[in-house]
Amino acid sequence: MKKRNTLKATDMGINTHHEPVIYMREDCEICQSEGFSANSRLLLECDGQSIIATLNIVDNPVLAKGYAGLSKIAMQRLMVKKGDILDISQAPVVSSLAAVRKKIFGNRLSPQDLQAIIMDIGNHRYSDIEIASFLSVCAGSRLNMDEITGLTLAMVNSGKRLLWPDHKEVFDKHCIGGLPGNRTTPIVVSVVSAGGLIIPKTSSRAITSPAGTADTMETLANVNLSLSDMRRVVAETGACLAWGGAVNLSPTDDLLIRIERALDLDGEGQLIASVLSKKIAAGSTHVVIDVPVGETAKVRTHTDAERLISLFTRIGQACGLTVRCVLTDGSQPIGRGIGPALEATDVLAVLQNETDAPQDLRNRALLLSAHLFDLAQQCGLEQGLRKATELLDNGNAWQQFQRIINTQGELKKPVAAKYRQTEKAPRNGMINAIDNRQLARLAKLAGAPSSPAAGLYLHTRVGQLVTTDSPLFTLHSNSRGELDYAMAYYQQADIFSIKETQ
Amino acid sequence: MKKRNTLKATDMGINTHHEPVIYMREDCEICQSEGFSANSRLLLECDGQSIIATLNIVDNPVLAKGYAGLSKIAMQRLMVKKGDILDISQAPVVSSLAAVRKKIFGNRLSPQDLQAIIMDIGNHRYSDIEIASFLSVCAGSRLNMDEITGLTLAMVNSGKRLLWPDHKEVFDKHCIGGLPGNRTTPIVVSVVSAGGLIIPKTSSRAITSPAGTADTMETLANVNLSLSDMRRVVAETGACLAWGGAVNLSPTDDLLIRIERALDLDGEGQLIASVLSKKIAAGSTHVVIDVPVGETAKVRTHTDAERLISLFTRIGQACGLTVRCVLTDGSQPIGRGIGPALEATDVLAVLQNETDAPQDLRNRALLLSAHLFDLAQQCGLEQGLRKATELLDNGNAWQQFQRIINTQGELKKPVAAKYRQTEKAPRNGMINAIDNRQLARLAKLAGAPSSPAAGLYLHTRVGQLVTTDSPLFTLHSNSRGELDYAMAYYQQADIFSIKETQ
Repeated sequence: MKKRNTLKATDMGINTHHEPVIYMREDCEICQSEGFSANSRLLLECDGQSIIATLNIVDNPVLAKGYAGLSKIAMQRLMVKKGDILDISQAPVVSSLAAVRKKIFGNRLSPQDLQAIIMDIGNHRYSDIEIASFLSVCAGSRLNMDEITGLTLAMVNSGKRLLWPDHKEVFDKHCIGGLPGNRTTPIVVSVVSAGGLIIPKTSSRAITSPAGTADTMETLANVNLSLSDMRRVVAETGACLAWGGAVNLSPTDDLLIRIERALDLDGEGQLIASVLSKKIAAGSTHVVIDVPVGETAKVRTHTDAERLISLFTRIGQACGLTVRCVLTDGSQPIGRGIGPALEATDVLAVLQNETDAPQDLRNRALLLSAHLFDLAQQCGLEQGLRKATELLDNGNAWQQFQRIINTQGELKKPVAAKYRQTEKAPRNGMINAIDNRQLARLAKLAGAPSSPAAGLYLHTRVGQLVTTDSPLFTLHSNSRGELDYAMAYYQQADIFSIKETQ
Repeated sequence: MKKRNTLKATDMGINTHHEPVIYMREDCEICQSEGFSANSRLLLECDGQSIIATLNIVDNPVLAKGYAGLSKIAMQRLMVKKGDILDISQAPVVSSLAAVRKKIFGNRLSPQDLQAIIMDIGNHRYSDIEIASFLSVCAGSRLNMDEITGLTLAMVNSGKRLLWPDHKEVFDKHCIGGLPGNRTTPIVVSVVSAGGLIIPKTSSRAITSPAGTADTMETLANVNLSLSDMRRVVAETGACLAWGGAVNLSPTDDLLIRIERALDLDGEGQLIASVLSKKIAAGSTHVVIDVPVGETAKVRTHTDAERLISLFTRIGQACGLTVRCVLTDGSQPIGRGIGPALEATDVLAVLQNETDAPQDLRNRALLLSAHLFDLAQQCGLEQGLRKATELLDNGNAWQQFQRIINTQGELKKPVAAKYRQTEKAPRNGMINAIDNRQLARLAKLAGAPSSPAAGLYLHTRVGQLVTTDSPLFTLHSNSRGELDYAMAYYQQADIFSIKETQ
């Protein structure tokens, strides 16, 4: 059975996202003798590296005889270049799939099962449909406490883990998302580290939102820190504001999230494991989680929020992490800017105590900071709030923010967009509701987050009286086409509900 | 929102199996303005046809500006040719996915839900990961009786349905598979139609086995019958032996089976719906199902078989179909030939009452025929067996077989393979077991079923004494390479267990 099947590698120039694809000719003898057909799972080996890839059969003369084409991600993961020799064989059975089948058939997964599954997914041994199968049978509330705990720890083990041996207590904050503009992190980090807490913050980029904290921070600072950069910045300032992707914490999470998004599955077990694994891997001991509740937020009812909060807290405890969840108002966006640079502008306004700084963003950041102080010092929430407010008002937080940024690199000025367009209220009345989801989509259509200056600036809030002269929002975009397209979307969407006031 | 995004179509020459893929340039303005990225789901429209396709981003100069490349299946389903104008937009939300999510969250699916899901899958609106998600949460025993019934009827409705208005009772037989060489269908059809039963048999090609009934019959006859051909043959002979694929019965089943195989999921609900939907769509009223049970067969234990049989019978009843399951010995292959032409040779030997015809194949076919006679005439199994034996022994079945084949086209002689190699027993002893799965794989490595003459011929059976002079099997192949490769596999496999007899 040890006959070698080899072909030379070549780049097909095709981006298949995370799923590696190998392209082989229809008349390829290996396909014929081995019985490979379109969609077969193949093991590719080259120079000690190996990956599993899905086969696509090609009858296009572009692919020369003797060559196998690889998609971008296959080239990358195998670390091959054109002409390298590939060994091609049937993919071996992935043994942890037996555990997935066990779960399909209604049995519980042990910590060992979850460890094996997450390791195989992390090593790219699962096809997309296999990941979809695993996530589907774990979605909803199909994972019990022990399983979510096992999943969390397995995800921690799948990547790097930061240790902060000089600090007994390491703090963190997180927002489960769904609320445009809710960019409290840079403010909270500045306030609590100005108050003496250690908070080495790693943040993600946007997945489906108009901006992630890393996208926003990148318009102001260098966020691409190596592990040793992070250590240096934290040693000097007690905090950092880094992009988490660069330090490889819980990397399997990203592979799962991609399929979860595609399936529009928001499994609570998955969400909890995703959040907590990143915090544990970052070396945190205490974390405050912002859970906005609102009709168009991620969590829609108080009942759902209570359940989620209870699970977060108990599973945190099982993993040795102190978790405090803060249920907040998620009925409308926070702040005025939506999009990386526009949110950065809001953050700066709050930190610099400008008179027109968005008060809702300020208040939300102070509340979360107060909870962190209370967690750290058991000072009570009121005392925590007083302390946080003082640190913000007296400029200490702003100074601390600048120290962090300057230690990471240099403070940048957020870029401005080329094109702007302001839309006024269609009629007189009171703003009754603002749809978070549609508003986020509007900002994305204007170009956020890939164009950092793009997004929108909100001029109104729920409860405000408007006339046909009142501006609702200003779109910011770097391309006329995107601006027009976003406006066309706005015209047919139903973002602002305006109630007539008689 | 009614801005049109158009590109010209071109064939990428890539076979992505059932999942349509659209390839767009990295610098394509549509991708940028619409925010499409690798793996986005897009709606493609052209001339009244539309499909949903998955996006792959290409940076290869092969794809010219202004063009979008399509995979084979995308070209076919959209019925476009190079240069046709495609309208490209974000794929609309597939509403039946809400029902899949409902099932994920542990709720039951209504007949309407199942109808909507199967219709959308049949119309290719689901991505592979969405089909995987649906199958995973329906696998194992996660579907109850009502759901399996709903799924069966939804699958019937997804394709054509044959009606036989001249016949009150229409018979059928099926084997759930897993046993190489178990080619009883042509014999059973000949016997029972010679005995007056109406049996318009449609069969499938091999999916993972070395031969399907359609593959075997194709070496003897024309099986590619249109619906009107089928009607004519059945009107003249009371039976037919056709390939089911040509008449589009329960077409969604094939889309599901592909993902089931890839996930190695054998959901019982899915299996039952798959089998029964094809029978109902074919217009059958009575069906006998052969359920071989054995350690290396599809059903491994009597407990599993009993459960499956009970479900088959009750769900058949709920769908208005009389189902009788026959539990048979699945411990070793049936007949001697494995592979299309080699199995056809066995079938002819039994029908022609040759002295060396394989008795196990003859007996299995007679048993199933007896059950069909008993179902039709309530004559009792013993009387049914007598009748079946008589029709076979007196040559009526063989004459009837020839009538059917000649009405379908012309009787062909099974082709012979170019290369043969016989393997002898490695030592003296008694054949203790034969591994069905590994034996099937051996026949496939020799080239079956794509090379109809390929496969193997078995010289021994369980319980037989062998010496190192006894031939175990003869491999048949049309290529030296495949023969060598199959032999290499045999050397490292463990197909024949030989017990020393002292």
